[in-house]
Amino acid sequence: MTPPTHREITQPFEVRFTHRVIFTRHALSADNPVLAGVMPGDPPGKPTKVLAFIDSRLLEQSPGLLLQVDRYVQAHAGSLTLAGPTDTVEGGEASKNNPRLLEPVLRAIADAGLCRKSYVLVIGGGAVLDAVGLAAAIAHRGIRLIRLPSTTLAMADSGVGVKNGINAFGKKNYLGTFAPPWAVVNDFGLLDTLSDRDFRCGFVEAVKVALLKDPAFFEYLEAHAEALNKREPSATEHTLARSAELHLQHITTTGDPYEMTAARPLDFGHWAAHELETITNYDLRHGEAVAVGLAIDTLYAAQVGLLDVQTTHRIHRLLRTLGFTLTHPALKDTDRLLKGIESFREHLGGELTITMLQTIGRPVDVHAIDTAQMQIAIEKLRAGEPAA
Amino acid sequence: MTPPTHREITQPFEVRFTHRVIFTRHALSADNPVLAGVMPGDPPGKPTKVLAFIDSRLLEQSPGLLLQVDRYVQAHAGSLTLAGPTDTVEGGEASKNNPRLLEPVLRAIADAGLCRKSYVLVIGGGAVLDAVGLAAAIAHRGIRLIRLPSTTLAMADSGVGVKNGINAFGKKNYLGTFAPPWAVVNDFGLLDTLSDRDFRCGFVEAVKVALLKDPAFFEYLEAHAEALNKREPSATEHTLARSAELHLQHITTTGDPYEMTAARPLDFGHWAAHELETITNYDLRHGEAVAVGLAIDTLYAAQVGLLDVQTTHRIHRLLRTLGFTLTHPALKDTDRLLKGIESFREHLGGELTITMLQTIGRPVDVHAIDTAQMQIAIEKLRAGEPAA
Repeated sequence: MTPPTHREITQPFEVRFTHRVIFTRHALSADNPVLAGVMPGDPPGKPTKVLAFIDSRLLEQSPGLLLQVDRYVQAHAGSLTLAGPTDTVEGGEASKNNPRLLEPVLRAIADAGLCRKSYVLVIGGGAVLDAVGLAAAIAHRGIRLIRLPSTTLAMADSGVGVKNGINAFGKKNYLGTFAPPWAVVNDFGLLDTLSDRDFRCGFVEAVKVALLKDPAFFEYLEAHAEALNKREPSATEHTLARSAELHLQHITTTGDPYEMTAARPLDFGHWAAHELETITNYDLRHGEAVAVGLAIDTLYAAQVGLLDVQTTHRIHRLLRTLGFTLTHPALKDTDRLLKGIESFREHLGGELTITMLQTIGRPVDVHAIDTAQMQIAIEKLRAGEPAA
Repeated sequence: MTPPTHREITQPFEVRFTHRVIFTRHALSADNPVLAGVMPGDPPGKPTKVLAFIDSRLLEQSPGLLLQVDRYVQAHAGSLTLAGPTDTVEGGEASKNNPRLLEPVLRAIADAGLCRKSYVLVIGGGAVLDAVGLAAAIAHRGIRLIRLPSTTLAMADSGVGVKNGINAFGKKNYLGTFAPPWAVVNDFGLLDTLSDRDFRCGFVEAVKVALLKDPAFFEYLEAHAEALNKREPSATEHTLARSAELHLQHITTTGDPYEMTAARPLDFGHWAAHELETITNYDLRHGEAVAVGLAIDTLYAAQVGLLDVQTTHRIHRLLRTLGFTLTHPALKDTDRLLKGIESFREHLGGELTITMLQTIGRPVDVHAIDTAQMQIAIEKLRAGEPAA
């Protein structure tokens, strides 16, 4: 037998997951079977440990949630057992900058003796879902995560994502993993305490994904924009559910759930949004920043002849009817804003790839941005001028 | 359209990876194309950033490695560029307990401006591969990781694994992820400075995987045990390569690369090994502890009538010929040792599952351990008595 001084093994393999999203109301009512249904014992019949984490901002509005979690688990004592007291986690996008955010969550999971068959239940907005999700993903190399998004934004978009993360060393989402949640339970009852400002934020991700993938849904949004602005339940619930579904379909069926190639069409409008959030120190909410980002990129697309002007107007009109303001003083600093393009490239790595729109339902990847035209687009938006 | 007050989406999906392992000699010689070959530019032709981390223990033995890395990258300036100075990372199993191990690696990756198309090159033993691997896995949600294992143990087993991790809150490998490396380059030239004690450690994982999967390989090991004990290159290289290959085949072809079910046959003999490492405060090397663990579990299997006594003797004889001592004073504390069974169950979660042997090449999962019989097996081993 000759020694293998130069031998190569190349072995493709795959990892299989199941993505599960359920829409309900009052998931924590003891008689609602949804949550218990997604947390079966393993092996079946054996009560399984669950540890809950709640967003501090949500808890301020709904302090009763702590007791509800206890009662829910008690009502399902045959299959669930609380592994420790429910913890509070600092909410809001700015909290993702706190380098001490993760440690207490990891410690609580360790103290509770959770294992990879246990459940971490997290109730909150996107930042808390992201931070607790990261902790659950790296504790014992992954504990089953049940997300209960409490904002329209998390229900419509990030809550069904397969990512988590916190900011570190001054970089947004620098630390994180790709890790599909065990299940996502979208409980529309959690939305009642949201301010109008936060409530509308989720709709922008619905507009974004409709523009990328579903012209009929875009028309639905146009037809129901007033109803959405008034928080009418039926329109709200359809909008959030359809948005979540389109996001989930994109992630699970387009062949690159872990974003190993450069293209990230779901980030449409997001390069400017990320930069605007940073410039305004998160004064501009993520949804508000994405609305401005979509306005900029559609104006630019019109400017360079990709997208027709009428469609650009339609999109801006929808965003305004939903209650978004498409100008912002921060647009004055175009140099700073344009740095967002380079940050975006660096985060993706390699070549710049930005999603633009050709028409509703037809995105296109571009690999270069005409900076002068982009500056004109930003300036027009700031001045409130319509697309030329 | 009725609002979806209770709607469910269940969507299976898969993530595809390629596992790549190359065996070579002197990978860091400027004229060896292997390393440059696994680090192509993305897009091709563009020099891609690489940042290297080296095990402090390895560097003590081979201080020239720092310069070799620089020269190798310079020699391949068309496709590679150094993103920062090569960092040293504390080596050895005990270092995985250092809660400050990860932070400087994460900071170096951030400072170097690596993105997801860049490469982290890590050269070292299992603990350093694990720690740097975790940092690379969570920075920007995963930077391409090139592993250069510097020990027989890492070449034969963990280096081809899809896991990483560090200890935290008193729990072994509490923090970690499943993350396939971009490539593993097994450079036999790195083994020359290993002590005999460290050198033999890798062989025990070869024995383990031969017992589980390949009777012909077990016979090869029996026939070459003396040669392996004398570090004869041809036998050593075949043994490490075949062991790596069998580990890789198991991970990539048995349908559960991320260990989502309970069974972990590659952990054969490891429940006792983990406990012995802790009891002896890592005085016993991992390979030495696994040798004792295999001896315990095969004696137990003989004791309860699973495995015939002759085969047990063959296995113990091979381990001894390879240079392992199968008794240890720590075996006296059987109560403490038996706690390893419960830790193992807790780490896996749910039901206890321990791999035992029926005959060479035929493992079986057992879900209960007869503690009295296990105590007898441990006591016999300690006293140096042969299996009855």
